[in-house]
Amino acid sequence: MRDVSIIGIGQTPVGEHWERSLRDLSTEAVRAALEDAHVKRPDALYVGNMLSGQLSRQENVGALIADYAGLRGIEALKVEAACASGAVALHLAYMAVAGGIHDIVVACGVEKMTDTTSEETTTALASAADATYEAEHGLSFVALNALLMRRYMHEFGYKREDFAGFALNAHRNAVNNPNAMFRKPISLEAFMRARMIADPVSLLDSSGIADGAAAVVVASTEFARAQGLVPVRIAASVIATDSVALHDREDPLTLQAARDSAWRAYAQAGIGPNDIDFFELHDAFTIMAALSLEAAGFAARGEGVRLALEGQITLEGRVPICTMGGLKARGHPVGATGIYQVVEAVQQLRGQAGANQLQGCRIGMTQNIGGSGAIVVTHILERIE
Amino acid sequence: MRDVSIIGIGQTPVGEHWERSLRDLSTEAVRAALEDAHVKRPDALYVGNMLSGQLSRQENVGALIADYAGLRGIEALKVEAACASGAVALHLAYMAVAGGIHDIVVACGVEKMTDTTSEETTTALASAADATYEAEHGLSFVALNALLMRRYMHEFGYKREDFAGFALNAHRNAVNNPNAMFRKPISLEAFMRARMIADPVSLLDSSGIADGAAAVVVASTEFARAQGLVPVRIAASVIATDSVALHDREDPLTLQAARDSAWRAYAQAGIGPNDIDFFELHDAFTIMAALSLEAAGFAARGEGVRLALEGQITLEGRVPICTMGGLKARGHPVGATGIYQVVEAVQQLRGQAGANQLQGCRIGMTQNIGGSGAIVVTHILERIE
Repeated sequence: MRDVSIIGIGQTPVGEHWERSLRDLSTEAVRAALEDAHVKRPDALYVGNMLSGQLSRQENVGALIADYAGLRGIEALKVEAACASGAVALHLAYMAVAGGIHDIVVACGVEKMTDTTSEETTTALASAADATYEAEHGLSFVALNALLMRRYMHEFGYKREDFAGFALNAHRNAVNNPNAMFRKPISLEAFMRARMIADPVSLLDSSGIADGAAAVVVASTEFARAQGLVPVRIAASVIATDSVALHDREDPLTLQAARDSAWRAYAQAGIGPNDIDFFELHDAFTIMAALSLEAAGFAARGEGVRLALEGQITLEGRVPICTMGGLKARGHPVGATGIYQVVEAVQQLRGQAGANQLQGCRIGMTQNIGGSGAIVVTHILERIE
Repeated sequence: MRDVSIIGIGQTPVGEHWERSLRDLSTEAVRAALEDAHVKRPDALYVGNMLSGQLSRQENVGALIADYAGLRGIEALKVEAACASGAVALHLAYMAVAGGIHDIVVACGVEKMTDTTSEETTTALASAADATYEAEHGLSFVALNALLMRRYMHEFGYKREDFAGFALNAHRNAVNNPNAMFRKPISLEAFMRARMIADPVSLLDSSGIADGAAAVVVASTEFARAQGLVPVRIAASVIATDSVALHDREDPLTLQAARDSAWRAYAQAGIGPNDIDFFELHDAFTIMAALSLEAAGFAARGEGVRLALEGQITLEGRVPICTMGGLKARGHPVGATGIYQVVEAVQQLRGQAGANQLQGCRIGMTQNIGGSGAIVVTHILERIE
């Protein structure tokens, strides 16, 4: 198999783009990534998107975006894996290039979520859960996370405020990200006063619904070097799955697919958690950040929250997470999120992260989660000379 | 790249399965295909599905089906490319095995369309068209095909009855397919009397909305041989795209993506149209059958209908199409159709097509179309000893 690298990145600001359509947003991101890579026409375009059918009544967005981005005719398709759609698109691009099927592939994530009522969006998001055994009974996606957070607090003796560090860190980091949705720091007091959504999940435990698109160009490392580009190597790309329904798992507080995905990725890259310089994790809710840190081996069971309490997740900490704002403060355009995480990791590894630049970072990890842990995609990215 | 073959097939009957869910149908097809291949646990499952989000409020069906099929934990994902979703899933499976990323991959197509009102289904199907410039103005998918058929009749001087041969052939062949939805022959009189849906497209020009699931197991040809299985080789697997909106094409009567996809597939397989023993084409409407025959090089522009008029598309003809009933009479569970086509082609190539068996066939082609030609996937399959 060929060695594979990311050679171009592009993104739109994350936010409420009422004046812009799904095809506009994705075209901007794809064109920006192609320009960044100095590539005119890739061999294929893989789009990650969750909700275009339900919220925009538009399917077949692979072909649609290819056409609008000026790439009519190329191989193009859409993948859907709930909130992990973006990283799944990258996994397919990785696969196509590593296997020698294609030379240059664009992976794009896009979502358009704010042109509908919040009831429509909430109902659509619940389709990431089990329609028959969860959503049918009125369980929303926030409610599922509330069940997890409540159980975690009960099991390990934490209070609501113990989770604040995740939100504070994300908002602090988003201040310096021009593409982030919420560019203002929040205080512990604000966190504690935040409106309750589904007890114990408050507004400030939750990531923001948003519109946005991001894209990366994938090619062989050999090609990147020949073109004089600065390649960021994909050292690992792994998808793992679990039951969709939370109640079908032996231990709901273990994200088994996150664990499988991360540890298989470590094996593929030939490294361990201690080699990871920063971790762009899937903080759709603060509880998910805690569980991800545990699944990926940065904390023992029940101690993920402790990393936030002890300040180990900040830019200066042992395991920096959400370095450009994370889902919480950059915003969470669901099908695009997996690509935003990778774009931001590439910025760090290239030294383009501005005021949030981590000094001397060489290896970054991203983890994109679909459903309440039903599908998890882990990528390990490496700066090479 | 490795030589890739299909080593197992499975399918449910196509029809109105009001008593069965999407997960039940797909589990049956996946289990049947795995048993046929004598494989217990594949490396990955790729699901093609178009409408689960809109009609069943269930996304993330890759992980869901993997779990219900007894494969919890494996890499699993869903692809969506309107009615071409099934063949796109197979293309990804082909890619993963050819490139050496995975050894054994299952491609499954599934759709559940009949548990809703016909208005809901019609609206959902229209999402395969351009939501902003076509569907928004009330154009249904049948209407789009009516525009094409009307233009074709006008341009080349055909009458409605000239298209009857496609429907008659499909229904005749479905009689002997135990999994087909409409197992009865129809007459020319019935065709001419058929209720008009969107002039000139009548009920008997149109394929049936249906539930169903089909699956194939893909592995390296070397593995297949080592296991003593009868491999059907994937000699070509190609995706091409076009504009989603019909009016954006220079010539609406040329299915450019079908042409690109077919001719690139011929090049990949090192053959031409004359080497194809039978062609499982995408006869969602009779006009699409005519246009596909032209795009794939079996008839000149404006002469696809002639093949039906002259009886060249029957089991005894020069270019047998829809040998097990096609979309018209086997039924068209949209995201599953691309896999049904391949399953039926494998049956022919293995000599398992029963009363419809083509004698001495060696090379079959399948073509799966999404939207009004926006994405087209062509596979060339070859019996090897």
